[in-house]
Amino acid sequence: MTHADELLEHNRDYVRDYPGPKPLRPAKRIAVVACMDSRLQIFPLLGLELGDAHIIRNAGGVITDDMIRSLTISQRMLGTREIILIHHTNCGLSTFTEDEFDDKLMTETGARAHWKAESFKDVDASVRESMRRITQSPFIEHKDAVRGFVADVETGELREVLPA
Amino acid sequence: MTHADELLEHNRDYVRDYPGPKPLRPAKRIAVVACMDSRLQIFPLLGLELGDAHIIRNAGGVITDDMIRSLTISQRMLGTREIILIHHTNCGLSTFTEDEFDDKLMTETGARAHWKAESFKDVDASVRESMRRITQSPFIEHKDAVRGFVADVETGELREVLPA
Repeated sequence: MTHADELLEHNRDYVRDYPGPKPLRPAKRIAVVACMDSRLQIFPLLGLELGDAHIIRNAGGVITDDMIRSLTISQRMLGTREIILIHHTNCGLSTFTEDEFDDKLMTETGARAHWKAESFKDVDASVRESMRRITQSPFIEHKDAVRGFVADVETGELREVLPA
Repeated sequence: MTHADELLEHNRDYVRDYPGPKPLRPAKRIAVVACMDSRLQIFPLLGLELGDAHIIRNAGGVITDDMIRSLTISQRMLGTREIILIHHTNCGLSTFTEDEFDDKLMTETGARAHWKAESFKDVDASVRESMRRITQSPFIEHKDAVRGFVADVETGELREVLPA
């Protein structure tokens, strides 16, 4: 039995107490952008309830083209107005450089990717860079309520990072 | 007060009962790929606990280059081996076509994006297409445990979609 089968059994319990249905458009008109890290449980971390916010996550929580796509759809098609960015301590993306990532892919697959890994050393600088990428996008409509945070994965606490 | 300030107050409660710390590498070695939709609360939907799985989410839960990036890092750098894809009923990406999205961006911003919105009409076909994009990527290492699902946002129930 894979883990997927075990998780499907849990889904049956979830259906019994499902707190929906809720409307398509997020009630709090917020999009949360966060790292995929397994220690970030976004709903309880922010006290969100089902239907409150879009949750967009990738490796690092960094603003890539796909994040711009998701945020553009979130704001222009589905009515969100605030953005909350969450990076975190002890991030996997700080454990290697772009060159090391390229060398590993070359060794293991015989080719490098046409995209960057988006690795970083300084998490505060990475949050600020992501805020800047949002500001620079012509497609994101609402930029006056963008807040950036670093989550401490030892404690669950959020610390705000102010734009440079 | 923005919603962000209200959510930061909730974070103080979360810290008091934080179920961590947990290791960097996901305990169940799973990456969940899901839509950003506000009605998908992935941890309880699958009975996951803090530290169990990477959670990667974008508009639609579709496999884009950024998803391939995140999954490559998840598997090659952080040891995951299973992938669970979750699309859902009543998805925002089924409410417009690529042409309509382009026209809207052109009207509102004066330019179209260089990326697609990744809109779709048939959610089962979209899950299968995402499974195929995973299969086609040379960078994703483990492809023998990829499962695709559609979540019913009225009930919280998962329905499996088998590959074509």
